[in-house]
Amino acid sequence: MSSRGDDRPKRALRGRAGRMRGGRGSGRGSSGAVRLWGRHAVEAALKNPERRHRKLWATREGVASLDGELPADFPVEYAQGADLARLVARDAPHQGLVLDCEPLPEIWLDDVLDGDPARPLIVLDQVTDPHNVGAILRSAAAFGACALVTQDRHAPPESGALAKSASGALELVPWVRVVNLARALEDVAEAGYWRIGLAGEAPATLAEALPAGPVALVLGAEGEGMRQNIAGHCDALARLPISEAMESLNVSNAAAIALYAAAAR
Amino acid sequence: MSSRGDDRPKRALRGRAGRMRGGRGSGRGSSGAVRLWGRHAVEAALKNPERRHRKLWATREGVASLDGELPADFPVEYAQGADLARLVARDAPHQGLVLDCEPLPEIWLDDVLDGDPARPLIVLDQVTDPHNVGAILRSAAAFGACALVTQDRHAPPESGALAKSASGALELVPWVRVVNLARALEDVAEAGYWRIGLAGEAPATLAEALPAGPVALVLGAEGEGMRQNIAGHCDALARLPISEAMESLNVSNAAAIALYAAAAR
Repeated sequence: MSSRGDDRPKRALRGRAGRMRGGRGSGRGSSGAVRLWGRHAVEAALKNPERRHRKLWATREGVASLDGELPADFPVEYAQGADLARLVARDAPHQGLVLDCEPLPEIWLDDVLDGDPARPLIVLDQVTDPHNVGAILRSAAAFGACALVTQDRHAPPESGALAKSASGALELVPWVRVVNLARALEDVAEAGYWRIGLAGEAPATLAEALPAGPVALVLGAEGEGMRQNIAGHCDALARLPISEAMESLNVSNAAAIALYAAAAR
Repeated sequence: MSSRGDDRPKRALRGRAGRMRGGRGSGRGSSGAVRLWGRHAVEAALKNPERRHRKLWATREGVASLDGELPADFPVEYAQGADLARLVARDAPHQGLVLDCEPLPEIWLDDVLDGDPARPLIVLDQVTDPHNVGAILRSAAAFGACALVTQDRHAPPESGALAKSASGALELVPWVRVVNLARALEDVAEAGYWRIGLAGEAPATLAEALPAGPVALVLGAEGEGMRQNIAGHCDALARLPISEAMESLNVSNAAAIALYAAAAR
């Protein structure tokens, strides 16, 4: 047990640290299992009351590394590390923990836009790399973002690789998938958010463009950037102050900087 | 030709944009070829006068996508995309360009510490993931860092995956590999740099700890952080202002924020 354990160890891996998720969603496939691996990803999924678990494969050491204890009735199958390696992507660092579970329930945009200026919204247009989306979720959790919004057809599904990069944040940051990103941005504006699109060619820097109130940070895919229609649904475009030597930053690095800049207002 | 071409198109892919590299180095293997792929990585390597090229495999489209033209005597072998796919890591996005070349010449620390406050130094302790090191090089180039310093035994070699993540920055940012990182940090201090180690448990934030003068930003591996001896060779430790919900950020995201914060002083 780490120092984070509470006084109800038998319950510690269920029923804590969740946030309400509910309402109508849009197109997230609700069938099919998701396979997660790695200590942070699995531990966070075990602690998320919104996550329905199917089965945990684990080494003894993997279970011992968890912060908290599994309920007595939890479906665990103990195995050797080499057996776990066959359950996950090649060379995936499972750390002795592989969890099969259901995808998270769908979330509706209205339920996450709390209008708190200290909790920016992150909107991604056509960012498809699961490692980038995972790292963005991790930074979003670290900087208290209220949610991540992606377009259903142009974003990766929940997956083990994404969850591993998110390091537990997949369970912490509400992830809203919408059918129409432009329409979602209209809803975001109606909820009082100032929508800033990151674009390398913009004259203003992000620091100059940041408002005092609630802000939505909109990032496009590397290379192509935001689609024109998405840029057209932003209240302002802004750039990060980078040298001409590079065209752009990695999108998760750009998102991290944007979240930091918003927090540093 | 893109608008970046110059008036000597036949020479455009050689002899530009290089920086001097020289002096004694330490342990970078100088034998063996490095295989690079992807447009940005290959184009930057072709333009780097310090990079010795062996052979380019390419599709016609790949060569056409380059900014500039290859010299008439350049060793190119035209091939189909499927043939190129067999030359690189599985599913690696080669974009029609695969280049075999020599590793870059070794660089000595003294040659890169120019004492310019606008050009921070990045020091990595035991960061081994090539995607992270590549993304850090990319951010380092974007924010004008003077160099990257790693310890020879605890850093990845030049590789295609690293160069792809660096998106050309492997050719732009001097990368100094040292045998003894603690001793290197002593040299960095002697050169007038204030060494800030990023550590989640530090009381001061990075913004509070940043000096007006030259700065070295020291980052450790995720999970373990900096080794104690490396932290002991920093002038100050500082944290990024993240929520308690997350233990840490992805190391390349943390480096990007640190570089932005240094640039925003």
